[in-house]
Amino acid sequence: MNTSRPWHHALRGALTSILAVTVFSAQATSFPPPLNQQQTKQLRVIKNTALQVDLSYQVIESLTTEVGARLVGTPAEKQSVTWAVNKMKTLGFDKVWVEESEARLWQRGDLQAAITKPYQHNIVALALGNSVGTGGKALTGEVVEFADLAALNAAPAGSLENKIAFVSYRMTRHKDGHGYGSAVGARVTGAAQAAKKGAVAFIMRSVGTDTNRFAHTGVSRYEDGVKKIPAVAISNPDADLLQNALKHKQPVTFSLTMSASGPTGQTTTIANVIGEVTGSSKPQDIVTLGAHLDSWDVGTGAIDDGIGVGITLAAGHYLSQLNPRPARTLRVILFAAEEIGLYGAKDYVARRQGDLQNHVIGAEWDFGNGKIYQLEPGVSKDSLPAIAAFARFLSPMGISMAQTNNAKGQSDMSALGEAGQPAVNFNPDGTDYFDYHHTENDTLDKVDRDALKFNTAVYSMFALFATSTGADFRQ
Amino acid sequence: MNTSRPWHHALRGALTSILAVTVFSAQATSFPPPLNQQQTKQLRVIKNTALQVDLSYQVIESLTTEVGARLVGTPAEKQSVTWAVNKMKTLGFDKVWVEESEARLWQRGDLQAAITKPYQHNIVALALGNSVGTGGKALTGEVVEFADLAALNAAPAGSLENKIAFVSYRMTRHKDGHGYGSAVGARVTGAAQAAKKGAVAFIMRSVGTDTNRFAHTGVSRYEDGVKKIPAVAISNPDADLLQNALKHKQPVTFSLTMSASGPTGQTTTIANVIGEVTGSSKPQDIVTLGAHLDSWDVGTGAIDDGIGVGITLAAGHYLSQLNPRPARTLRVILFAAEEIGLYGAKDYVARRQGDLQNHVIGAEWDFGNGKIYQLEPGVSKDSLPAIAAFARFLSPMGISMAQTNNAKGQSDMSALGEAGQPAVNFNPDGTDYFDYHHTENDTLDKVDRDALKFNTAVYSMFALFATSTGADFRQ
Repeated sequence: MNTSRPWHHALRGALTSILAVTVFSAQATSFPPPLNQQQTKQLRVIKNTALQVDLSYQVIESLTTEVGARLVGTPAEKQSVTWAVNKMKTLGFDKVWVEESEARLWQRGDLQAAITKPYQHNIVALALGNSVGTGGKALTGEVVEFADLAALNAAPAGSLENKIAFVSYRMTRHKDGHGYGSAVGARVTGAAQAAKKGAVAFIMRSVGTDTNRFAHTGVSRYEDGVKKIPAVAISNPDADLLQNALKHKQPVTFSLTMSASGPTGQTTTIANVIGEVTGSSKPQDIVTLGAHLDSWDVGTGAIDDGIGVGITLAAGHYLSQLNPRPARTLRVILFAAEEIGLYGAKDYVARRQGDLQNHVIGAEWDFGNGKIYQLEPGVSKDSLPAIAAFARFLSPMGISMAQTNNAKGQSDMSALGEAGQPAVNFNPDGTDYFDYHHTENDTLDKVDRDALKFNTAVYSMFALFATSTGADFRQ
Repeated sequence: MNTSRPWHHALRGALTSILAVTVFSAQATSFPPPLNQQQTKQLRVIKNTALQVDLSYQVIESLTTEVGARLVGTPAEKQSVTWAVNKMKTLGFDKVWVEESEARLWQRGDLQAAITKPYQHNIVALALGNSVGTGGKALTGEVVEFADLAALNAAPAGSLENKIAFVSYRMTRHKDGHGYGSAVGARVTGAAQAAKKGAVAFIMRSVGTDTNRFAHTGVSRYEDGVKKIPAVAISNPDADLLQNALKHKQPVTFSLTMSASGPTGQTTTIANVIGEVTGSSKPQDIVTLGAHLDSWDVGTGAIDDGIGVGITLAAGHYLSQLNPRPARTLRVILFAAEEIGLYGAKDYVARRQGDLQNHVIGAEWDFGNGKIYQLEPGVSKDSLPAIAAFARFLSPMGISMAQTNNAKGQSDMSALGEAGQPAVNFNPDGTDYFDYHHTENDTLDKVDRDALKFNTAVYSMFALFATSTGADFRQ
């Protein structure tokens, strides 16, 4: 999941109260069933198949074994495109194509970090995406700790001359992941804020809920006209260590040696990979399922977003096997360059000149592996009853319908949502998601195969419903 | 550590409150109580103090912050000796000294590991202790997998010419940690066995129960007359990846570039740090508590064995504060170079020419942070009733006494046990111990402060009991 955008979960609470008056009640019963008898039977078949077989896991296993980490601009990212095209064809998609565009190139390079005084410790750290390096030389400075981004922002101008700013804020753990919203601001803007005060580098406690000695990477941004200083996340245990050193004795000096490229203006070719299961009677009407194909270069991108790739490709395969086919076309979009700023999603919209009128509805999977507990719509008022009727198929699975109607779609899909595509968000239990997010620990063994089957069943059911129903979710 | 010592205040408070409590009445026994009334009171005081204050944690925090990782032969290891001497003096030990000797020097150097064909993956790996390197050049070979050490041993001579042997055995998780015994053989002897079959390198799934992307280091041994080949542990997720690659397609090639020193014959000076709380009436009778001061160079050695250092120093401090002092002398031994082969413990015995007649009994702490659930003696038959009577003090804490009498002492202390010192093993819940063991993840945050207080109380109670009782545990 990309982490540079405002986190939509954080907005959810506020929007809930504002719009609660206008939303549809799922308990209402005065609407026709959204699916006919045959379609309902297909829904059951697809649900049972997805719950029994392991196809989405096999897809993730294939991607992480045969390709692995696939950072934008690396050979593995190019291989992932070939892999995805072949996999879609193998799985029975009718049309498969790529849409190329350009994205900013950033290269991580090497990094060594250390506390150098009054004690010596090697520190586990990762450059934040987009960070400049130190020209390969050691940059050393005294550490000044700030409890959070607000405290850093409040520091007087010039107060950090030749210092290294350290934000020690610790992300909190929540089912809906909203602790991320409070923590990620420092990652995105901390370096620019610190530079404004004169700092020579910016380090921060990783945005993550684990206590493993892994740093969490993710995108950062510089401001025009503000000096670009190195931006680095250190692991939670290393942040503890640095805080303890600061408590024991002052000053504490920190050293960084980095060869990260920073924003060079150089670009690299990226590619959305798109596959369709053609609709039988209304092929011009498009239902989209999205995930992102790129990953960070640490870990093998199994959770972020191999799981999304697995779920959406499996859903497409299950639909392709139905006879008769659903009326509408299912389009699975594996977006490029999500992690570094939704480049693929933005290109997808731009290519269509913002006209997504044939896009009936969409859903993305980019939030790990917890079981889905909530369906949150963002559709026309007239079609809410159909969504509610579909939600009844999910109710025995423990999934409720949110009392809001504001969903724009997760991560990439939000770009399509902003362009007018109706959306459904399926919200999973995100309690553990930020334990692994953007770390070396994002590997295949972290995938919960039972939860994956469950979520694959939900997405497959949604794909069947949305391509089969006569309801129109557009305004 | 901060110069303020809050535990002194806490101890005084505890003393005051406990002295007001009615006298402890021993339960009915078929043998004389091992402690008199005053000693029993002291036992309660020391128990309550250790359960309330956080001294052992403060010691670990100080060691891991001010020194950190302390591999034999590194500057940090020398610093740890100075740290330990100062800490013992600060904590009220009467005599503190060091005993120097020599240990084999091994240097880790750098390591890059990768799967190079048919897919490309960087692999998280650590050289095993004592391993040779590759002369800084890439060594590449086809991987041959073995399910366990026995399968490797059964491979025909010459069958691994130019190959890299890979043992994929996965350690199992158990409360008493016995899965380690089934897994560690490959680590110790795998490289020599593989070399006998012609292999050019030996890699293995880490000996660990976690699924984190950390390799677990640990000692390996070569055999005289057998070619010394590089010996490497890879993380559990990387072992999964390698197994999956082997399932997908053969051959799989692996590349290692290492600058580890191997056994060079070079030695380095090591030092046991020893502190005593002198006995009041039988100072010549020695009760020992042991832990090891050295650690691996990954992590900060908080669990292995910072916890042992914290527990034993805290126990010594609590005893030093008693008035009157126990009859016998408590000797806390912080052993050197345990991780690379019990060098400090062996020197301790050798210096005394194997004569430990004045060593009444000993116990070591070197098994993590789970709560103690069992006391296991290794004492004279005549003194078993005294141990059983002491065990009754532990019974309300949920600690039982083993029905065996064979304990020799954990890790270092086993060398003293072999030389005739009676021992008690306190067995903790080791379910999670091998999640962190010998990895970068062995850091301060992994210390469970409640379990630590509990275990510190048990060791402090044991120290008080063993230095106060008239029972003689020797044969």
